[in-house]
Amino acid sequence: MTLQGLQGSEAQAPRRSGSARRISVLGATGSIGTSTLDLIGRDAEGFEVVALTAQSRPEELARLAIKHRARVAVIGDEAHFEALKAALSGTGVEAAAGAQALCDVAREDTDCVMAAIVGAAGLRPTFAAIAQGRRIALANKECLVSAGDVFTAEIARQGAELVPVDSEHSAAFQLLAGAEPGSIEKIVLTASGGPFRLWDQAALEAAKPEQALKHPNWSMGDKITIDSATLMNKGLELIEAFHLFPVSAEQIDIVVHPQSIVHCLVMYKDGSVLAQMAPPDMRTPIAVALAWPARMAAPTERLDLVRLGTLTFEAPDEARFPALRLAREALRCGGTAPAVLNGANEAAVAAYLGRRIGFCDIARTVERTLEGAGKEGALRTPACLEDVLAADALARRLAQAHIKGYQ
Amino acid sequence: MTLQGLQGSEAQAPRRSGSARRISVLGATGSIGTSTLDLIGRDAEGFEVVALTAQSRPEELARLAIKHRARVAVIGDEAHFEALKAALSGTGVEAAAGAQALCDVAREDTDCVMAAIVGAAGLRPTFAAIAQGRRIALANKECLVSAGDVFTAEIARQGAELVPVDSEHSAAFQLLAGAEPGSIEKIVLTASGGPFRLWDQAALEAAKPEQALKHPNWSMGDKITIDSATLMNKGLELIEAFHLFPVSAEQIDIVVHPQSIVHCLVMYKDGSVLAQMAPPDMRTPIAVALAWPARMAAPTERLDLVRLGTLTFEAPDEARFPALRLAREALRCGGTAPAVLNGANEAAVAAYLGRRIGFCDIARTVERTLEGAGKEGALRTPACLEDVLAADALARRLAQAHIKGYQ
Repeated sequence: MTLQGLQGSEAQAPRRSGSARRISVLGATGSIGTSTLDLIGRDAEGFEVVALTAQSRPEELARLAIKHRARVAVIGDEAHFEALKAALSGTGVEAAAGAQALCDVAREDTDCVMAAIVGAAGLRPTFAAIAQGRRIALANKECLVSAGDVFTAEIARQGAELVPVDSEHSAAFQLLAGAEPGSIEKIVLTASGGPFRLWDQAALEAAKPEQALKHPNWSMGDKITIDSATLMNKGLELIEAFHLFPVSAEQIDIVVHPQSIVHCLVMYKDGSVLAQMAPPDMRTPIAVALAWPARMAAPTERLDLVRLGTLTFEAPDEARFPALRLAREALRCGGTAPAVLNGANEAAVAAYLGRRIGFCDIARTVERTLEGAGKEGALRTPACLEDVLAADALARRLAQAHIKGYQ
Repeated sequence: MTLQGLQGSEAQAPRRSGSARRISVLGATGSIGTSTLDLIGRDAEGFEVVALTAQSRPEELARLAIKHRARVAVIGDEAHFEALKAALSGTGVEAAAGAQALCDVAREDTDCVMAAIVGAAGLRPTFAAIAQGRRIALANKECLVSAGDVFTAEIARQGAELVPVDSEHSAAFQLLAGAEPGSIEKIVLTASGGPFRLWDQAALEAAKPEQALKHPNWSMGDKITIDSATLMNKGLELIEAFHLFPVSAEQIDIVVHPQSIVHCLVMYKDGSVLAQMAPPDMRTPIAVALAWPARMAAPTERLDLVRLGTLTFEAPDEARFPALRLAREALRCGGTAPAVLNGANEAAVAAYLGRRIGFCDIARTVERTLEGAGKEGALRTPACLEDVLAADALARRLAQAHIKGYQ
């Protein structure tokens, strides 16, 4: 596809007014990034795109940067720099590449940074984005899961505002607006239960990646879809919720809700329960994060309870889905245990997608890695992001050893 | 039961501190009134009871006034004044009686008046309570249904604060806190569907009061229980919601939800839907109305979604339950039509409970009364409460004529 073809076939955003909100999107070509740009494209007067970044798809990044009139586009993988420069040649969009450039551009002054780089790769750029002290719309799980207290301390130190984008945390964020911490009894996160909700242990052991990737409700990236199948996704969200909201770990419950319509419930001490619902479309929580405390229009399917008819709820089975238990244990252990949990999980999911280990080996790898890191005395409280990254690297090393053992 | 026995068997509230909220309860012996006092009694340091009122149960009123150390107790029916005086003799609680005394005591300075007198009888005392310009916790439906614009204009003129107590409107109130009117797409009120949800037309025609009084979920007064069976209760709530919240009549939907767990949903323009849930116990919305924007503890059953398992939703059937249609038509007609609807309904429900008309004759009576009042040119915009009361009286006269026709 040529640049001419791109420009010819897609309308560019019009020039923005001075009152437009300036936004950068880290991870622009991913699932959250493209949904964010879809919304922004529908309100081109309301937003001014400063920077778009991607890891490894220079042509797609260039297409988005041109369409949304970004000032700069950054590709993480320097091997793609020439391709990006070529695609942006003559468009007026600046090109940059490399890990340092990702962080530099994240620090550029904006009103909101959509932090949507998947995995531990998102840690440094998202930390960098805090420096401007504006809104961080957080779609990266690892900042809170792995870096937890370090991340929230940095947010507080820089006076930045943290608005979660995950559908469950966005739900809790909306439901908790203005609540006194002492008035909250419980936060209940819902889980779809994933494609293997009703599978027995023997079937789970044999579950193939193509089966795990068939999520019943959401269309997401591969890594998060596997995490939904193991319920590790919900375990990571439990850890995130602990850092985002003024509750203890024991005040956060998980309920399986196969329809994925109710995303979270907040139970108050007067018996009132507030819940947030929406059809599965990430553009709703993204719109909340972009516009809060106002609301912007999102062209999502509207909830039709009569057509749905029935919403069901059941307890999660931690025997078949031990990831939930592991996440609770890591949260209870504290220190770098959640970072080790996450690093080991990321390595194990990659190995599963590469058909090097079985489905149930993902949780086993995580559990053994946590045990191993504990024996090495590597679960101490991290003082800074470097400590977190060291724990993450250790976890991946230990996990790889376990993964080799399964092959 | 003697006064000595009452004092001996029940602990009195302790003396209150200066920071206690002063509250009066209009309709103290009814369902909402006793639930309010139950909550207040559990937080005796937090509340100072100024006045309690009742229509016709002097001993019960005296018992509550003594227990909660009210300053004054007022009985609406003067025939019971001597009994009230006798029951309060030597207790230090002042006694009063009559319609004027009800209004006088409603005007007494407080922080909050719980306006829980059932039916059109609650209109004058609740209007009187607005005069102090503090919070009106509104449990009486007729103030908004019958007096609508007149009531809200008076609230605005006196700078009073209106907090609804009905579970559905309390839900919407919580869900709409701080929302821009333009961000709201719809408010969805849920209806249990009542005990006759699955009955066919022939069975409905023959439905007996004792069958209609068996509400599937709520324990309430007789009048409101019959209104739940006809769905007129939901029709009245539709009219109330129109006056309470910044939406058009077309933005208010009704959905049947037999479990009565979800009370209301608010749909926003970003696709996000906020819902309020709670097991059926009026102490939750009462606690919200007493403590808002804070929350006070309420000893209600906690929602357990896993134990409930399933929530279902279906469209209401306006053919079998024409009260919903009649309420929408009255709201569309405006003027005194909602007051006529309500007055006619109150007369018809009384006739049904007295076995003078059949179940389906309730809606027929209301419809014919609305037609009759329209023909008399009596549905004009009311200028004041007197106009509303005149329409109410006319509706009752016309309804009685129709009721006689069925006998």
